[in-house]
Amino acid sequence: MAKNDTVRAVRWEDGAVVLLDQRRLPEAEEYLRLETAEAVAGAIREMVVRGAPAIGITAAYGVVLAARAAFREAGADWPRRIGPQLRILEAARPTAVNLRWAIGRMRAAFDGIPGNPEAPLLDLARRIHEEDIAGNRRMGALGAALIRGGVLTHCNTGSLATGGHGTALGVVRSAWADGRIDAVYATETRPWLQGARLTAWELRRDGIPATLIADSAAAALMRTGRIQAVIVGADRIAANGDVVNKVGTYALAVAAAAHGIPFMVVAPTSTIDPETPTGEAITIEERDAAEITAFRGTPVAPSGVAAYNPVFDMTPARLVRWLVTEKGVVEAPDAASINAFLDRG
Amino acid sequence: MAKNDTVRAVRWEDGAVVLLDQRRLPEAEEYLRLETAEAVAGAIREMVVRGAPAIGITAAYGVVLAARAAFREAGADWPRRIGPQLRILEAARPTAVNLRWAIGRMRAAFDGIPGNPEAPLLDLARRIHEEDIAGNRRMGALGAALIRGGVLTHCNTGSLATGGHGTALGVVRSAWADGRIDAVYATETRPWLQGARLTAWELRRDGIPATLIADSAAAALMRTGRIQAVIVGADRIAANGDVVNKVGTYALAVAAAAHGIPFMVVAPTSTIDPETPTGEAITIEERDAAEITAFRGTPVAPSGVAAYNPVFDMTPARLVRWLVTEKGVVEAPDAASINAFLDRG
Repeated sequence: MAKNDTVRAVRWEDGAVVLLDQRRLPEAEEYLRLETAEAVAGAIREMVVRGAPAIGITAAYGVVLAARAAFREAGADWPRRIGPQLRILEAARPTAVNLRWAIGRMRAAFDGIPGNPEAPLLDLARRIHEEDIAGNRRMGALGAALIRGGVLTHCNTGSLATGGHGTALGVVRSAWADGRIDAVYATETRPWLQGARLTAWELRRDGIPATLIADSAAAALMRTGRIQAVIVGADRIAANGDVVNKVGTYALAVAAAAHGIPFMVVAPTSTIDPETPTGEAITIEERDAAEITAFRGTPVAPSGVAAYNPVFDMTPARLVRWLVTEKGVVEAPDAASINAFLDRG
Repeated sequence: MAKNDTVRAVRWEDGAVVLLDQRRLPEAEEYLRLETAEAVAGAIREMVVRGAPAIGITAAYGVVLAARAAFREAGADWPRRIGPQLRILEAARPTAVNLRWAIGRMRAAFDGIPGNPEAPLLDLARRIHEEDIAGNRRMGALGAALIRGGVLTHCNTGSLATGGHGTALGVVRSAWADGRIDAVYATETRPWLQGARLTAWELRRDGIPATLIADSAAAALMRTGRIQAVIVGADRIAANGDVVNKVGTYALAVAAAAHGIPFMVVAPTSTIDPETPTGEAITIEERDAAEITAFRGTPVAPSGVAAYNPVFDMTPARLVRWLVTEKGVVEAPDAASINAFLDRG
């Protein structure tokens, strides 16, 4: 693996799925070895692994384990025995689109497999994994070419959330490796602290010096002139380029615009949903108040106080300077430029 | 005391200073009874009480305790015996301007006191306390008249930080009591969580329903249309109206401007420093990285990671719609309007 890119949240090793237990970070770097699809489903459910691409890849390897077990039990009849295990995998995180997509792609290969399915399915799972990393590297190179100086990123979009390298953090990795950037700031990302727990950990692990800030200090930091680009990922992008991403993204986009700092969104084209005309149409999930009012079970607010705790927010396309995908960069994205870009691809 | 204004961080009761122990909030509401100036200095030093006005008032009562002890020891010679105790009080929080100001005002009264100084000095300390509350109520009324609907506030600027009622939170209290506002949102205010621990507690205690948000959710909340004013305090205001306040204030001002939401700063005229021409001249104190990288001693980031942790930030005057003081409101403050306002007073 390349320098500055050594972290892998998901691996296949000696006939098993090996997952970095992200619940234990940053205190401990522990890997869990999983030999059954049920165990993989449990790990996805319990947030051992997180990040849509990483979950999809984990599920693909989980299908290999399911097929191995089904073949041991039923021989050539394995495709008819694997169903219950696939359903357990699919149900592990019901809203995760990548999970269903990866399982679907594995399942589509079943028909053409003669004999023992483990090796051919493992080849396919590895291809899914490698395609993700290759796409991230491509986005990394495209994004890195656009930036210089100091950058700010939000949440965790790195090797921990993907097959490796990362999306927004992949651009940071590539730009650092190319010597294009000289400072990386990471927001702590309340309430889950993905920036403090995960991004700071993986950058440190890969020898990229990073500086953590409270989310609320980002605008003041921009005012100091130390930030030349803000780089974030995306959970979903509407047909007009509106971006739904981790809460706090919109605040960073507003502050970046106020300081004339370009705002870069890095996401694979699969994140763009042509069926969603604008971001206004996307319902923003709200989570439990306890994520704000307590910290790891210790109350930090008076009992019974209300909290508004949206998981995501929506950044209008007009605040986005670059949308970086594995297929190319859309500058100043809007409905027309995104439509032309998708048609071209 | 008025409804919606029952919290007092500092009281004089039966010959002693009684402080609400703010270190224990919101878990426990505990009061410490202090009968010596040394004990008061210790409580200031150990953050039992916080907020510049509250510290000043506490110190004024501390001078009463010092004078009582000196008179018991030395009779009419008490003004010559009180010196060491005053120096202990002054040293409790060396950078706190209000603390030195309050002790100076008490000391200036020593000469005119015949006999036992306890009663006349207690009268003066009570006057200092009552003047603070009266100023806050005046600011509350002036600020409340300007707003309607939903409001957002930052950090803690309430009864816990002042003699009572509060500055920015005093406007919230007055506006709520007058039925002018229907929703109060409070940022949790990282890294110290004054919003979660203190503001949510005192609003709840006073029957004003509040909703906590992560600092990073403020801009997204503004975008929903639920906020009609952002109301903050100030630690220092330059002659041109630039505002230095708790980190995150500037981010809120930038977001408010982007949404056309008026931004109100509430602070006594003593906060305005005519000797400081602009906010650029003010050095922003940075605190230990551990405030970001750990939570109550538990690491939340990998060991050794750097953090940029400014305590305050600077909001340019052009982002301020109203500066509310006890002597009146300056609209769209700048050097000329602030100079005219101070001359008038």
